[in-house]
Amino acid sequence: MPTVAKEELISVIEQLSPANKGLEGVIACTSEISTIHDVTLLYRGYTIEELSAKCGFEQIIYLLWNERLPNPAELEALKKDLTANMTISADLLPMLQAIAKTNSHPMAKLRSAISCLGLLDPAAEDISTNGLKQKAIKLTGAMGAITAALSRLSKGENVIAPVAGKTLAWNFLNMIRGTEPTAEEEKLFDTALVLHADHELNASTFSTRVVASSTTDLYSAITGALGSLKGPLHGGANEAVMKMINEIGTYEKVDAFIEDAIVNKKKVMGIGHRVYKNGDPRARILKELSLQTCKKSGLEHFHKMLVRIQEQMEDRKGLMPNVDFFSGLVYTALKIQSKDFTPIFATSRIAGWCAQAFEQYANNRIYRPRAYYTGAVGKKI
Amino acid sequence: MPTVAKEELISVIEQLSPANKGLEGVIACTSEISTIHDVTLLYRGYTIEELSAKCGFEQIIYLLWNERLPNPAELEALKKDLTANMTISADLLPMLQAIAKTNSHPMAKLRSAISCLGLLDPAAEDISTNGLKQKAIKLTGAMGAITAALSRLSKGENVIAPVAGKTLAWNFLNMIRGTEPTAEEEKLFDTALVLHADHELNASTFSTRVVASSTTDLYSAITGALGSLKGPLHGGANEAVMKMINEIGTYEKVDAFIEDAIVNKKKVMGIGHRVYKNGDPRARILKELSLQTCKKSGLEHFHKMLVRIQEQMEDRKGLMPNVDFFSGLVYTALKIQSKDFTPIFATSRIAGWCAQAFEQYANNRIYRPRAYYTGAVGKKI
Repeated sequence: MPTVAKEELISVIEQLSPANKGLEGVIACTSEISTIHDVTLLYRGYTIEELSAKCGFEQIIYLLWNERLPNPAELEALKKDLTANMTISADLLPMLQAIAKTNSHPMAKLRSAISCLGLLDPAAEDISTNGLKQKAIKLTGAMGAITAALSRLSKGENVIAPVAGKTLAWNFLNMIRGTEPTAEEEKLFDTALVLHADHELNASTFSTRVVASSTTDLYSAITGALGSLKGPLHGGANEAVMKMINEIGTYEKVDAFIEDAIVNKKKVMGIGHRVYKNGDPRARILKELSLQTCKKSGLEHFHKMLVRIQEQMEDRKGLMPNVDFFSGLVYTALKIQSKDFTPIFATSRIAGWCAQAFEQYANNRIYRPRAYYTGAVGKKI
Repeated sequence: MPTVAKEELISVIEQLSPANKGLEGVIACTSEISTIHDVTLLYRGYTIEELSAKCGFEQIIYLLWNERLPNPAELEALKKDLTANMTISADLLPMLQAIAKTNSHPMAKLRSAISCLGLLDPAAEDISTNGLKQKAIKLTGAMGAITAALSRLSKGENVIAPVAGKTLAWNFLNMIRGTEPTAEEEKLFDTALVLHADHELNASTFSTRVVASSTTDLYSAITGALGSLKGPLHGGANEAVMKMINEIGTYEKVDAFIEDAIVNKKKVMGIGHRVYKNGDPRARILKELSLQTCKKSGLEHFHKMLVRIQEQMEDRKGLMPNVDFFSGLVYTALKIQSKDFTPIFATSRIAGWCAQAFEQYANNRIYRPRAYYTGAVGKKI
């Protein structure tokens, strides 16, 4: 068995403290985009409570990319540009059809589709400030449209075209379900998009920045982000929450489930957040806003079950729900199948990925940390 | 114009020292795979000089993945498995054809093709130790084969099948050129593959680890790495070296070019390395080994020009060539077009990406550093 000098081991331990694993606590960059401040989430200095109450997703996209909210003309122009990019081009469609017919993970399909979208953009390599904005509009319009198209094509259904003059939220629900949303559904989904648009240096956003830092193109950076979001430690928690409440089955069984989880130290999905010690504001917003739609969709019992789990976990363990706790129920109430939950996350987070990529390109240095070598030296063949 | 408290600014400067930008000097993980030690590069404790003199690329792949060199039976088994994965499947071929006919960057094509390869692997999501090894074999066989296929399909040429019993180096040259390599060509290319197989935490390898850390699948991690390698700050330097000597034109003009570069502080491509202060051992190996093939290809004048640039830069600036300085000439002498140079880098580096991904999955924590927020707070709509 190979050995290492004790000094070397000590040096490793000193340099790679537990706080460093996964780069926890390490500052990788500065950013003016989003932060957790005074127990809430800020985008460009505004609280998520105020933004979700007063702004639609398109305003948030503009805010994240331009450091201020749009005036009415700027907002209309952005909406028009986004809708134009929701149309699946004749070149892209056969690629999506080939991708959709494979028996693969929905996020692997989306990753491949976005990579192929880049192949069809003659200006894909343009990373000038203006070029990046154009690519961001293309990617943000396309992310939801491709998610909807892949979902439908995978089921053998036709692709639905976007409708001009409608919001991204309205169009997405119409394109993926094939049924127009009510005003209440549109508002609920739009709020979910607002709440997920950015969240500091989460793993997929950090992936965006790391890939972008070789000054590669934006499609490469976003393809990397999609591959990261795909992982069970990142996206996918809201699907796990829905699986959990389906397995519990009824309201009456919640307390026994929690008792068992606490006694046997089992993880309760969607509960706890490393940063929000007073609870994730996004969960509070979704909890309130989703009740009406849950009632109308016959899912009030699931809502009640989640609220009961929340109360129990807070009372007994002092833990609060995170954004994933109610979002799966929101999408279920909106009649979206669970396999599309993580692509929906991407449909919103693309706004933040692009904003953070802009910042990275504007003040770039290639990410090139060190690995501390613990392997052999002086070997001979 | 927004302002920030002076204390905050000072705090930023303290926490984000210049050493931290791009995470320079920050230890992101431990690794037993490769390191720069005593002025040379080690893979698993062996010097690159000894490995390149005594081992073929397949032995290096085995060494990187398994911590030791293979015995003859293990080597034969790996060669057989790799060759089997060089065949383009009937499912993949139409996807490659669609990708090849787009007018896009060769690395964007390769990124999309590898993402699509993952869609066709029914066990793509398997990240168990055995599952990862299987996927690594698939990816390592496929990377060169897809590079060759995309290169040929992009020119309207047919795809060439691999030949059993031949090395990856032999097959790659035959598949991309359509002409069998001589023994000398095979050895030269094989050595280039050996030299590029791994290099600690370069940006694409760090991308591999960051994406993998959400416990996503290996195809996602490698797709991210390809997007990173694509960037001008990472892959592509050897293409720039060839462009430079083509622009200089003749041996007689080298000294004036260097004079101008030094006086006007212009960058000389392929010269200098942040870590190897006594010169990159890989450049020395390629310089010697490429001379014969250059002579036979009528490129001896380019070799002489590079040697003269090297002498001048060392004498006058104390700077030495890096691996990119001679590799472009090597590939040109092997009759490979310059647009395929970066995909060839990937054809070798896939071995290291996979080894480093194995290590990441085996001792994982999701990469989640912090961004230091320098933006606004307390804004109201």
